Amino acid sequence: MAEGSARRGLRLEPAAAREVLGAADTLLFDCDGVLWRGDAAVAGAPAVLSRLQARAKRLYYVTNNSSRTRDAYAEKLRRLGFPPAEPRQVFGSAYCAARYLSQALPPDAAAYVLGSPALSAELRAVGVPHLGPGPAALPGPGPADWTRAPLDPAVRAVLVGFDEHFCYAKLCLALRYLLRGGPDCLLVGTNRDHRLPLEGGAAIPGTGCLVKAVEMAAEREAFIIGKPSRYIFDCLASEFKIDPARTIMVGDRLDTDILMGNNCGLTTLLTLTGVTTLEEVKGHQESDCPSRKSLVPDYYVDSIADLLPALED
Amino acid sequence: MAEGSARRGLRLEPAAAREVLGAADTLLFDCDGVLWRGDAAVAGAPAVLSRLQARAKRLYYVTNNSSRTRDAYAEKLRRLGFPPAEPRQVFGSAYCAARYLSQALPPDAAAYVLGSPALSAELRAVGVPHLGPGPAALPGPGPADWTRAPLDPAVRAVLVGFDEHFCYAKLCLALRYLLRGGPDCLLVGTNRDHRLPLEGGAAIPGTGCLVKAVEMAAEREAFIIGKPSRYIFDCLASEFKIDPARTIMVGDRLDTDILMGNNCGLTTLLTLTGVTTLEEVKGHQESDCPSRKSLVPDYYVDSIADLLPALED
Repeated sequence: MAEGSARRGLRLEPAAAREVLGAADTLLFDCDGVLWRGDAAVAGAPAVLSRLQARAKRLYYVTNNSSRTRDAYAEKLRRLGFPPAEPRQVFGSAYCAARYLSQALPPDAAAYVLGSPALSAELRAVGVPHLGPGPAALPGPGPADWTRAPLDPAVRAVLVGFDEHFCYAKLCLALRYLLRGGPDCLLVGTNRDHRLPLEGGAAIPGTGCLVKAVEMAAEREAFIIGKPSRYIFDCLASEFKIDPARTIMVGDRLDTDILMGNNCGLTTLLTLTGVTTLEEVKGHQESDCPSRKSLVPDYYVDSIADLLPALED
Repeated sequence: MAEGSARRGLRLEPAAAREVLGAADTLLFDCDGVLWRGDAAVAGAPAVLSRLQARAKRLYYVTNNSSRTRDAYAEKLRRLGFPPAEPRQVFGSAYCAARYLSQALPPDAAAYVLGSPALSAELRAVGVPHLGPGPAALPGPGPADWTRAPLDPAVRAVLVGFDEHFCYAKLCLALRYLLRGGPDCLLVGTNRDHRLPLEGGAAIPGTGCLVKAVEMAAEREAFIIGKPSRYIFDCLASEFKIDPARTIMVGDRLDTDILMGNNCGLTTLLTLTGVTTLEEVKGHQESDCPSRKSLVPDYYVDSIADLLPALED
């Protein structure tokens, strides 16, 4: 279905949807903006997923959000009426970051974490020692004091996720670990999202802003777990057998979901229930720029509820 | 003296120094790394400045540091034995940012400030209403609460300086003001320095990291006050008559002091008492890249104390 870099950006009408879904055995769903908005399911989305599951399609949940655990996602899917999912079907940037560090760190090495309790829980679940989550204060009145507080000798990585307690004290400590360890201290970011949109046009700053601040202080780039990096897809493909040619990535963001799907050879389907407008797709399609072309999905629907007719008997 | 973009990067020996200093009537000094390191004057620097002043050279102090007022700089110069300076000879990014906002903001408009008490004092001195300096907390447990706290109706600018209380709550509030005001809300950063080096190889994150986080959330670029922007030089030139051809910029950083001086048509003199090594200068000189060439100073000295022989009678 996917045609290399010549993505078409077609509206997926019911007849074509029947064919596209028939040829796929696996669907990956971004969650916020696709399955739900805030705490309400997108109308019709639970029914679509139930029918996909009834047709033996394999469903996985792929999200950049680092502030929920796999268990919390499974619970939210259940609560909003989606078909039952096991936590191991959920590939969030918190779980995948923890998995990355469990493989990349030497034995007994620890991570300094700017992140949420969920990120901490996922690290604990895979046995990565860590410190950092929660509020932090500068250890004294002036810059000389700020760089004199003791460092944990075990720390060999700085992990930056979504952190409502992000502060200058944490930025200082992250820089000190990175300067002490040099290239031997890993720098990992869960994702580069600029903003998290909320209902009514409001938005809060995304993890990318925090990752960028640490990168600029350290004068080096972080390894990024989330979409459009292919790392989350690689995690999924290493735990489950995936044939990209029979896999559809469903998402609401061009620069994360669709770009990742296109880069990994998946069929890509954009929903317009999230942050992207059709005008943006058209703009990229008409552009001569190859990097903008790579943001064009194979197909789009107004909402995944539009797939319902194609799934009727 | 300056030869357009063909900067030579020559060691300034005493004979040439006599000529270069003789042809100048004005010298601009970066402070940290040039005149002092931490709380100790660079050896010989006070004597050099005293002799320059005795020869009726005009001396100005030009710094990206936004965490001290003009008064505090004048006091530090006095305390470390430099010739007496008036606060109006000091052009710091805090004062110049306040001056910029006093001219750019409509009457009675206010600024939301991420910055130090010094930045607040400079804003007060020029009569710009503002709020923000000091610690801040998120106004509730979740994202929806974070965007519901009231906004100050007068705010028409977000100003980001060095802020040891920088935190996610401030980043949220900055984004809300910038989203509310759109292009009518100014976004100003005092400077883009990545790090502030301390004695012994330690360093703390610089203001640039904080500016970058706000820029990424807002998805727009800040107007930058500090070097290498020419804004500080333009402030100086609007308050005092300056002939660039008779002015020397003395600094320890290539990407701020020297680049700004080169861009403004000044003679540039690098001192090696700060963050820059001679190898870096040579690397830029031998490069074919025009943007690296623009970082090469006209001259360098190990320390400004090396100018002493040229100033003896």
